[in-house]
Amino acid sequence: MDFIERLGWRYATKKMDATQRVPDEKVDRILEAARLAPTSSGLQPFELVVVTNPELKANLREAASGQSQVEDGSHLVVFAAWDTYTEERINRMFDLVNEERGLRNEGWENYRKFLLSSYPSRDAEINFQHAAKQAYLGLGFALAAAAVEGVDSTPMEGFDPAKVDAILGLRERGLRSVVLMPLGYRDAEGDWLVKLKKVRRPRASFVTEIK
Amino acid sequence: MDFIERLGWRYATKKMDATQRVPDEKVDRILEAARLAPTSSGLQPFELVVVTNPELKANLREAASGQSQVEDGSHLVVFAAWDTYTEERINRMFDLVNEERGLRNEGWENYRKFLLSSYPSRDAEINFQHAAKQAYLGLGFALAAAAVEGVDSTPMEGFDPAKVDAILGLRERGLRSVVLMPLGYRDAEGDWLVKLKKVRRPRASFVTEIK
Repeated sequence: MDFIERLGWRYATKKMDATQRVPDEKVDRILEAARLAPTSSGLQPFELVVVTNPELKANLREAASGQSQVEDGSHLVVFAAWDTYTEERINRMFDLVNEERGLRNEGWENYRKFLLSSYPSRDAEINFQHAAKQAYLGLGFALAAAAVEGVDSTPMEGFDPAKVDAILGLRERGLRSVVLMPLGYRDAEGDWLVKLKKVRRPRASFVTEIK
Repeated sequence: MDFIERLGWRYATKKMDATQRVPDEKVDRILEAARLAPTSSGLQPFELVVVTNPELKANLREAASGQSQVEDGSHLVVFAAWDTYTEERINRMFDLVNEERGLRNEGWENYRKFLLSSYPSRDAEINFQHAAKQAYLGLGFALAAAAVEGVDSTPMEGFDPAKVDAILGLRERGLRSVVLMPLGYRDAEGDWLVKLKKVRRPRASFVTEIK
């Protein structure tokens, strides 16, 4: 498998074949990629909600300007970030690290104190925006994994976050929806985009080298 | 190559071997992955600055709390996002798409008008935060590509953006530094983190399924 070739294969699928279902083991590997993504201070300040329920997908489609992939993809993955950083959340992650590694480290504990003294008191919106960026990094890992698996996907910002939050009860869990990722298989006949060239800025206007 | 295995191999390298240089063809593929990353409306609102100059890397290390990877990695990749969305930037990208595809599409032109009527007049900070998220998605693609190439990397937020912007002259180009990615090879002897278990929340507290 050539990774760059797989990234060239992927595109923001506009029409999915509602009759095809992505196999569980492929979905598992795509979710695992997001779980393995690095996050700032290792806090993993986001979660995934995977919706396969047809009625719920139909409701969510309405909250996403009727975009068909939300309903036609077999799995809708909602990336939901922490609404803020709290002491409890920070401590839970640091405790998990200590438990898993079977050690306590002074430098690490000092770092915990630093985060506890700075993050929870910050404006919640700043914290959410920071957490949302980590979710985007995780989305990158998940989209790349989907491409490797030959699964189509659509990164999607065009939805009403308040409606999605309400449908999924995210706010009550201290979460806010950030981005959607339907997974499925392209309906190549019905998709206007699949026939069009992928366009990116040429490397010369994307990369500057300073030697 | 098992992609998930590669993602398990990668870690935020804390100490790099300053005597090793990542081959150009590997760096090229890592940058290409970032270039191929999807972005909101396809605007690609970020750029990469790749620094190999030793003096500049030393200066940038100072702006990054002295973190050694900035200097010891053979390549420092700076992800810099647009400071805002402007009419000119939006038009340039839409024009490029039309040129590359050799067509003009009414729906696409209406979408251009929609973006032109909404993005440039928004608060610059909101636009920058939106662009920065796209950079994080691109960072995800680049980190995954580095892992596939067997190249070590460190996603890094702990730096002074104003200083990095000044050192690289980013503001004059309408850019703001978002995140750093040193590339190099781990100094396994000198790296405290390489010996420790990678810790992530278990799947059950990361993924919710609604069937």
